[in-house]
Amino acid sequence: MSGKFITLEGGEGAGKSTLARALAERLEAAGVQTTLTREPGGSPGADAIRALFVRGDAEKFAPLTDALLIAAARADHIAHTIAPARAAGRWVICDRFTDSTHAYQGAGRGVDMAVLTTLDALIDAPKPDLTLVLDVDPKAGVRRSKGAHSGEDRFERMDLSFHQTVRAAFLGIARDEPDRCVVIDAALDKDAVRAAALDAIASRLGVHA
Amino acid sequence: MSGKFITLEGGEGAGKSTLARALAERLEAAGVQTTLTREPGGSPGADAIRALFVRGDAEKFAPLTDALLIAAARADHIAHTIAPARAAGRWVICDRFTDSTHAYQGAGRGVDMAVLTTLDALIDAPKPDLTLVLDVDPKAGVRRSKGAHSGEDRFERMDLSFHQTVRAAFLGIARDEPDRCVVIDAALDKDAVRAAALDAIASRLGVHA
Repeated sequence: MSGKFITLEGGEGAGKSTLARALAERLEAAGVQTTLTREPGGSPGADAIRALFVRGDAEKFAPLTDALLIAAARADHIAHTIAPARAAGRWVICDRFTDSTHAYQGAGRGVDMAVLTTLDALIDAPKPDLTLVLDVDPKAGVRRSKGAHSGEDRFERMDLSFHQTVRAAFLGIARDEPDRCVVIDAALDKDAVRAAALDAIASRLGVHA
Repeated sequence: MSGKFITLEGGEGAGKSTLARALAERLEAAGVQTTLTREPGGSPGADAIRALFVRGDAEKFAPLTDALLIAAARADHIAHTIAPARAAGRWVICDRFTDSTHAYQGAGRGVDMAVLTTLDALIDAPKPDLTLVLDVDPKAGVRRSKGAHSGEDRFERMDLSFHQTVRAAFLGIARDEPDRCVVIDAALDKDAVRAAALDAIASRLGVHA
């Protein structure tokens, strides 16, 4: 049986990577073999594309070029990481996936949503079984993110209104697809965020981890 | 008036770059302002993608990933080089364009032609006014190409049958679109190849250069 596919979405500094690691540990402890991955990247080919993508000026590439680069990386990531893991029955937890493309490149930078949907279909992007949207006030999030790592800051450097548009886009997706998405308040402390995520996994996917 | 768009297509070692330079010089001498460019690449963003694309193993990326990377680079190249030049009335000579994607990624590596056509439409790739297909026996072409430069050899390292498939694909495109394409025998000497190209420009585009 194909393993479940869980994506974590949200703005910069929402705590997605921390939560992703915690969920993978808890699922493994509950006996669910789990692959933890992230986008852009997640396979050697996709990581090479990521390196091109995340550094430099936000305007380095035209928005459509960004969308195509992400689709290129995603096709490789699906082929080499996500699909093989799920076929082997492993669950996959992915830090960012198609919703980030719709929020950043679509809502944030104006790429036609129909183009993004065409690209999703073209690479046969799997629909997540569960998407956890970590909602964070952009002011707090970007501040938190800037302390966390260096160099990969191409989108952190966009202005506040960009990040507010991205936040609204994530909340819009969650509202449009309530069966797939659960919004979690990322301002809660780490334990409370994890508890909310584990609750969602229990109620939506039937595994108590 | 928008400048004419001429593409040069064909396998490795067909002499496309040499011919492209010669045509640009002759057109400039005839008073036609000309921009000489090439793919993959042709703008700073696209060149960065080219660097990722042309080196390493032929199987480095999945074929669909390659097609998306090329489309990403092409979108940037059109936006930053081809469209502005043509809008300023300049002619553009481009060493490789969409036909190479159909021949290498489509016929050669099995990406669905409908996917490639969708990508062409998605990035609004301009139709060339004239395409010169330099036809070369793959055995001679790959040998010639290997001497010419180093490092950018990802596709030269594919086997002979791959290059034969690519050759047949270029000839098929020329047969299907005779109004756009002129096939030139690349085994002729350099002067004869250039003369044939200038004849095509004169008869198809009305400029004697």
